[in-house]
Amino acid sequence: MARIVAALGGNALGNDPDTQQKHVDTAAEMISSLVVRGHEVLVAHGNGPQVGMINLAFEKGYQAGLTPLMPLAECTAMSQGYIGYHLQQKIDESLMEKGSRTPVITMLTQVIVDAEDPAFLNPTKPIGSFYDEDTYLKLSAVSDDVYHKFPEGYRRVVPSPKPVRIYETVTLDVLLKAGQVIIACGGGGIPVVATDHGYKGVSAVIDKDLAAAKLAHLVGADYLFIMTQAPYVALNFGTPEQIDLKRMTVGEAEAYISQKQFPEGSMLPKVEAAIDFVRGNSERQAVICSLTNAIDALDHGIGTVITDDATRTTLR
Amino acid sequence: MARIVAALGGNALGNDPDTQQKHVDTAAEMISSLVVRGHEVLVAHGNGPQVGMINLAFEKGYQAGLTPLMPLAECTAMSQGYIGYHLQQKIDESLMEKGSRTPVITMLTQVIVDAEDPAFLNPTKPIGSFYDEDTYLKLSAVSDDVYHKFPEGYRRVVPSPKPVRIYETVTLDVLLKAGQVIIACGGGGIPVVATDHGYKGVSAVIDKDLAAAKLAHLVGADYLFIMTQAPYVALNFGTPEQIDLKRMTVGEAEAYISQKQFPEGSMLPKVEAAIDFVRGNSERQAVICSLTNAIDALDHGIGTVITDDATRTTLR
Repeated sequence: MARIVAALGGNALGNDPDTQQKHVDTAAEMISSLVVRGHEVLVAHGNGPQVGMINLAFEKGYQAGLTPLMPLAECTAMSQGYIGYHLQQKIDESLMEKGSRTPVITMLTQVIVDAEDPAFLNPTKPIGSFYDEDTYLKLSAVSDDVYHKFPEGYRRVVPSPKPVRIYETVTLDVLLKAGQVIIACGGGGIPVVATDHGYKGVSAVIDKDLAAAKLAHLVGADYLFIMTQAPYVALNFGTPEQIDLKRMTVGEAEAYISQKQFPEGSMLPKVEAAIDFVRGNSERQAVICSLTNAIDALDHGIGTVITDDATRTTLR
Repeated sequence: MARIVAALGGNALGNDPDTQQKHVDTAAEMISSLVVRGHEVLVAHGNGPQVGMINLAFEKGYQAGLTPLMPLAECTAMSQGYIGYHLQQKIDESLMEKGSRTPVITMLTQVIVDAEDPAFLNPTKPIGSFYDEDTYLKLSAVSDDVYHKFPEGYRRVVPSPKPVRIYETVTLDVLLKAGQVIIACGGGGIPVVATDHGYKGVSAVIDKDLAAAKLAHLVGADYLFIMTQAPYVALNFGTPEQIDLKRMTVGEAEAYISQKQFPEGSMLPKVEAAIDFVRGNSERQAVICSLTNAIDALDHGIGTVITDDATRTTLR
């Protein structure tokens, strides 16, 4: 029996509620298969398209004078409810089909970031719609949000600080000991910073793969599965010389990173999360694979396995 | 030590994120005071204004052709994330101020309703904005939603079925045993009905006080606190003959209900939830009081105490 953190991409879940319900089926099938094999499973997930959609809805509500502006931390909290609900319902259903009564819980998760993280000085992550200059001036007059000028217009950018700690650590431990399937760290977690008397949300987004790696560390996981749309991490991606990688050590991965093999905001953070999880621990494996191939990744080694060194035997 | 379910009104929490943060402070102070006195506390809450706001934002996003129509069950899931985040953060902060390290968790909650509930044949709960006839015709063409004509225009109405069972029962038990403060049943819970292979969400809203009473039954609570804006349940409310009630038995409450003393959709469901919780159990008390008076309700008997019979001694 292994302890597995499975990180699902927000893009892989679709956007509107009908599409999301369908895509979630694939994830649920994979997760329930892991559970009935006796593994302990924690599910982290992204929320890129979903938090963008929620943010957009509130922009329109605000522009119509009907709803308040909704801060990004609150939009992420909403997305945890929205995506968690679909995931939990489908995982439950898939477990029941397989005769398992393992309970599934969606736990609201705050992830603590450092208020001094240099990312706060350099917001880079675009969110929301493109605006013309008039709308941009109106919106920036009522908030401290930062906008960048893109060819398509002005667009809000937010910082993406590194996850430092997961707030709900004690609860996670309780749920794990009770054998629950846990959905946590949705959208990378609601980003909060310490204040004099507690914590408060910040307008930022945490990379969901780095948050999942943090979660995997915290619970002492054996495996970190990072589910994406590509079946393998590849070198020379999208060229005739593309090479799909079946295995990669931390040393190799770092060499590829220095060669700029992995695009920022796409494969790079996934490889970084994998390195972060396995470095210095030869018992651990990170697997980057496609959501639809996750069971094959487990059974037939489809997907890229990242280990601290080359001595680790195959998966399972 | 007692086990207490505290039901907070959605109206009492305000609507926009700034107001909600402030109002939540009062609730957090009350809840942390109960916890440091050694009580086990579960927090249920309404979501009337908040789910209305989320629904409205998505209406505007949809009308602008930018977001999908968002089903009501999904809006409720979002509101559980949104409100739970604020509540949890403030309760945590208030507990830390008092030197307590009791963990707080927000648990996504699905509440099972009966697909044959007569409420589904007679939707009565208004939600969202008023529309002119053109918009009404456009909206009703793309969904099965029911609209009623009000003096102000057309407005969507949804059924309010009775809560039958809380889906996350096993998880609740685990969290209670671990001594966690649990935020659950937000907005009365996400309403789901059984299907051939699991459960699915329905466009409905569950009364949050009835859901809280269900929760209180399930966990074998000693007290159900229903927090509202009025300090007492009153007879002849709003007339010169108004009488604030300090105590009320189930028999008395039922007599008042048959006299139509309590307005539907306001005090009536609160009194019904109180009756539902204490009936047949002389060890239990339900208390209907104002959020700001909740500590006084505990210490000085401010608020209306409902018991199965008249023999039960005062609170605590």
